Amino acid sequence: MPDQTSPPSDPKEVVRGFNKILAFRIAEWRDGFARVEVDLQEHHLNRSGLVHGGVLAALIDAACGYTGVYPLVEGQPRRAVTLSMTTTFLGQAGFGTIACTAERRGGGKSIFMASAEVKGPDGQLVAMGECVYRYIPDNPQGAKK
Amino acid sequence: MPDQTSPPSDPKEVVRGFNKILAFRIAEWRDGFARVEVDLQEHHLNRSGLVHGGVLAALIDAACGYTGVYPLVEGQPRRAVTLSMTTTFLGQAGFGTIACTAERRGGGKSIFMASAEVKGPDGQLVAMGECVYRYIPDNPQGAKK
Amino acid sequence: MPDQTSPPSDPKEVVRGFNKILAFRIAEWRDGFARVEVDLQEHHLNRSGLVHGGVLAALIDAACGYTGVYPLVEGQPRRAVTLSMTTTFLGQAGFGTIACTAERRGGGKSIFMASAEVKGPDGQLVAMGECVYRYIPDNPQGAKK
Amino acid sequence: MPDQTSPPSDPKEVVRGFNKILAFRIAEWRDGFARVEVDLQEHHLNRSGLVHGGVLAALIDAACGYTGVYPLVEGQPRRAVTLSMTTTFLGQAGFGTIACTAERRGGGKSIFMASAEVKGPDGQLVAMGECVYRYIPDNPQGAKK
Repeated sequence: MPDQTSPPSDPKEVVRGFNKILAFRIAEWRDGFARVEVDLQEHHLNRSGLVHGGVLAALIDAACGYTGVYPLVEGQPRRAVTLSMTTTFLGQAGFGTIACTAERRGGGKSIFMASAEVKGPDGQLVAMGECVYRYIPDNPQGAKK
Repeated sequence: MPDQTSPPSDPKEVVRGFNKILAFRIAEWRDGFARVEVDLQEHHLNRSGLVHGGVLAALIDAACGYTGVYPLVEGQPRRAVTLSMTTTFLGQAGFGTIACTAERRGGGKSIFMASAEVKGPDGQLVAMGECVYRYIPDNPQGAKK
Repeated sequence: MPDQTSPPSDPKEVVRGFNKILAFRIAEWRDGFARVEVDLQEHHLNRSGLVHGGVLAALIDAACGYTGVYPLVEGQPRRAVTLSMTTTFLGQAGFGTIACTAERRGGGKSIFMASAEVKGPDGQLVAMGECVYRYIPDNPQGAKK
Repeated sequence: MPDQTSPPSDPKEVVRGFNKILAFRIAEWRDGFARVEVDLQEHHLNRSGLVHGGVLAALIDAACGYTGVYPLVEGQPRRAVTLSMTTTFLGQAGFGTIACTAERRGGGKSIFMASAEVKGPDGQLVAMGECVYRYIPDNPQGAKK
């Protein structure tokens, strides 16, 4: 999922595409950790009025991805692509703010792995997941998998 | 992911929420099989102009879910919730129509499992995944996990 | 993975088959939690002298399974089958005791989900995973998926 | 799962450790494809007399791994480590030969992905799974994740 894990380096950058619809916001971010929140709106829900599984999967992927790309040198954001992700659905939420906390759990210079959990406004578990990412080298020659 | 796998029994039913944004359409559907397509538009893409991983995960979940809920008796749609899903990202697509074919692979009266693959407009593999679902009994007493 | 998650109700029961080879032991067990350990021996290792991925997957499955089948009524063990599992490999271990701690994260009367992590003798993360299980009803009529 | 995916370059090499117990054999192998079989014996089974989930997970990992390390130059085997794997359990088998067919589905120079399915002696589906691997560079400097 190329570069969706790299937040805009310029905060004034206009967010477009699917990320605009998702409207996730980074609530906490440091190397190895991220907390991403979303205020549920009608367009995040399924026909039952509950948060859509696709929103949860995208949220887990976003938060896990952020754990590995915190800029260690200011102005030098890193980029990564998702290789695989898993999502287990544990509960429901239909309104309010849901929050995904993610932690980098392993990896090194070329790969990293993270796990995450999503909680609803009452603190109830909504979903959990695991992701594997590959860093995109700065050298475009090395950008292939 | 409650009921996102149950298509509207009434085709005139207005599609709302996240499903309206995703704009998936069922291209083929029979018991045990589904092919779901989506015409990529700007709002399906990430900042690199490629299909967003969240769209791919939602597409795999939708197609896999359909494999288990084809109405065996007309007018009696079945419903299911996603318990878990996996997605492996294999390639890229940024324009045109992508299609997800899914097949039910196992299960029985209370559970079913399916696998799916997503191909891009040139037939290139974009993603694959596996999902597990639980049927929602008609009897509301049995609706709890 | 039928009944491998149900420990012998009689501790004197002879352990046979693959479980004898794995030689896992329950170090802590209560409703919703399990800690399973294994002392690594030559037959747990791969050709590089490191714990085999198959051992780690089996360990995660065993520990996650135990989280849901703790006997709530003495002498009435519950049984479950694994529907799906994921494993992410994070590190290595080649000697000493590795321990898998698992926690039930969701579910209800018919299904449960758990997550686990495996640590090596120095506390280093070795693997993590997520599992989904279905309870086997006492009523054999209901034993089908 | 370091190097379990690299078969012995010398067929006379003694197989030790967990692989000796698993007793998998490569029935078909070419670049991008592998078929691995195992004749079920008592030590592959769980307490119900059915193939142990840990055996199935190890079988899927082995077959998927082989799809990416077929020696393109004779005498120059490649090596890979498993980053993540998923297993969905679909059916049962308790005797006879089970076979896992795996196909490489994506990746490139540093990473590859594969999917697999396991069938029992009657052709029934027993399990399916997806794996992601990282190649181990010949250059030991690059061997870190």
